[in-house]
Amino acid sequence: MGLPTIGFIGTGVMGKSMAGHLLQAGYSLQVYNRTKAKAQELLDQGAAWAASPGDAAAACDIVVTMIGYPKDVEEIYLGDGGLIARAQAGTILIDMTTSSPLLARRLYAAGAEKGVRVLDAPVSGGDVGARDGKLSIMVGGDEEVFQKAAPLFQCMGTNIVLQGPAGAGQHTKMCNQIAIASNMMGVCEAMSYAVKAGLDPNRVLTSIATGAAASFSLSNLAPRMLRGDTAPGFYVKHFIKDMKIAIEAAEEMSLILPGLLQAKALYEKLAAAGHENSGTQALYLLYSGE
Amino acid sequence: MGLPTIGFIGTGVMGKSMAGHLLQAGYSLQVYNRTKAKAQELLDQGAAWAASPGDAAAACDIVVTMIGYPKDVEEIYLGDGGLIARAQAGTILIDMTTSSPLLARRLYAAGAEKGVRVLDAPVSGGDVGARDGKLSIMVGGDEEVFQKAAPLFQCMGTNIVLQGPAGAGQHTKMCNQIAIASNMMGVCEAMSYAVKAGLDPNRVLTSIATGAAASFSLSNLAPRMLRGDTAPGFYVKHFIKDMKIAIEAAEEMSLILPGLLQAKALYEKLAAAGHENSGTQALYLLYSGE
Repeated sequence: MGLPTIGFIGTGVMGKSMAGHLLQAGYSLQVYNRTKAKAQELLDQGAAWAASPGDAAAACDIVVTMIGYPKDVEEIYLGDGGLIARAQAGTILIDMTTSSPLLARRLYAAGAEKGVRVLDAPVSGGDVGARDGKLSIMVGGDEEVFQKAAPLFQCMGTNIVLQGPAGAGQHTKMCNQIAIASNMMGVCEAMSYAVKAGLDPNRVLTSIATGAAASFSLSNLAPRMLRGDTAPGFYVKHFIKDMKIAIEAAEEMSLILPGLLQAKALYEKLAAAGHENSGTQALYLLYSGE
Repeated sequence: MGLPTIGFIGTGVMGKSMAGHLLQAGYSLQVYNRTKAKAQELLDQGAAWAASPGDAAAACDIVVTMIGYPKDVEEIYLGDGGLIARAQAGTILIDMTTSSPLLARRLYAAGAEKGVRVLDAPVSGGDVGARDGKLSIMVGGDEEVFQKAAPLFQCMGTNIVLQGPAGAGQHTKMCNQIAIASNMMGVCEAMSYAVKAGLDPNRVLTSIATGAAASFSLSNLAPRMLRGDTAPGFYVKHFIKDMKIAIEAAEEMSLILPGLLQAKALYEKLAAAGHENSGTQALYLLYSGE
């Protein structure tokens, strides 16, 4: 038995790198993207073009999706002629988009009615992690299906954990985003305080970046803030989407998260000021008043 | 010329370890602590007892203070018969307490009138860093005085940085505490979300603790939260003190720090619930409702 055939829906910055690793590992790929031009590089490397997500689902053993927003996920999976409608029994569908845990459970249930197996498997690690095949992949779904998909995950990531049943991958990704959200405020506030107090903020980092205040954001994003580099590693607009999902999910669990609510309010203010396509480190602009 | 004689005021958990390193390095020490029993270990190791901070200042070349609150610092330095009143010209006074940047500048100025040199040199690294001589020491004051004090700092710490003029050490420590404050909310919120969502929170940590959400607090304090360990590494009451100093200093610079204000409000609620002598990771109790 040869390798399973793979459909890959969504070839943006992240998806392109992830699909590329599958091609390099020898998988036969059908790709689809709303803007076909963004799939060209993969087509040049030997991927086939699928006329629609549904066509890919009808033709492939496993379909991976890496798209934008929960509403896109809902449409592509549950819409007429979508993935679940067109997939044959036994097909595995893997949503690697950061999306709603509740929606992930709906996709799982809708798939189950047709014998289609669905995993939620959002990632962290950003464009660099995707490019280097070093993503953290947080998976929700059935153990047996996870085992079948594991070889694909291993092409894309290094930290691959089955977190629990359907939705658990998305919930885990929410934990990741929740931890980042408040920390971004702390990093921005520490750096803006340093500047206002007349300190050399880079020298401050030499004192604080390796102790109890240490964080990925302090080491990696604070230097970008200080040199005015707002280029997107991770878009403000996507972070806001994630925080909204997390807040909605938390509210349904009667959990109040004041730090997250505060961070979301600040990021929405930042987006309203025209920075929705900047990187998340642009939050510093709100504090520095630039 | 032999080693300078050292006065050490404040032999609590941190101070005791720090003074111990100076003794081990061969310095002759006079120690003072409000509760003498807490200095006994150092006296047994060969330190002499000073009847008051002022007596230590009159007799020593360098006096180090590691005490509780800014009001204690103010009294010990500026009070009648205090350090500055009793010190001879040329004496170096080093306040390693986390205290107010404005007060640090007042001490510097009051000392300068008498030819007494004052440094502010708060630390981070906690009881473990103090015990292992691996503190981060953030110094404010004159370069020449910093150079004279450097051999002492090297007994106590590994990351020793002159951050600027008087007050700059305290300001840098405030940056450290500001970054921690919001991050603690993020860590608590991520863990409480994980539990509410039915995830295994320790498994969640395996997915998120090394990526973009990575932080010292997530790796070191989240596991304590999850096993219900609220033993103090760093006291809630001291963290609240630090946040108050930072907020006051920020307000004087017309800087609004919403994450810090939110964190302080939560910690005050925690203290009011009887947790002022718990470790800062006890913040998790507010979220988990235990």
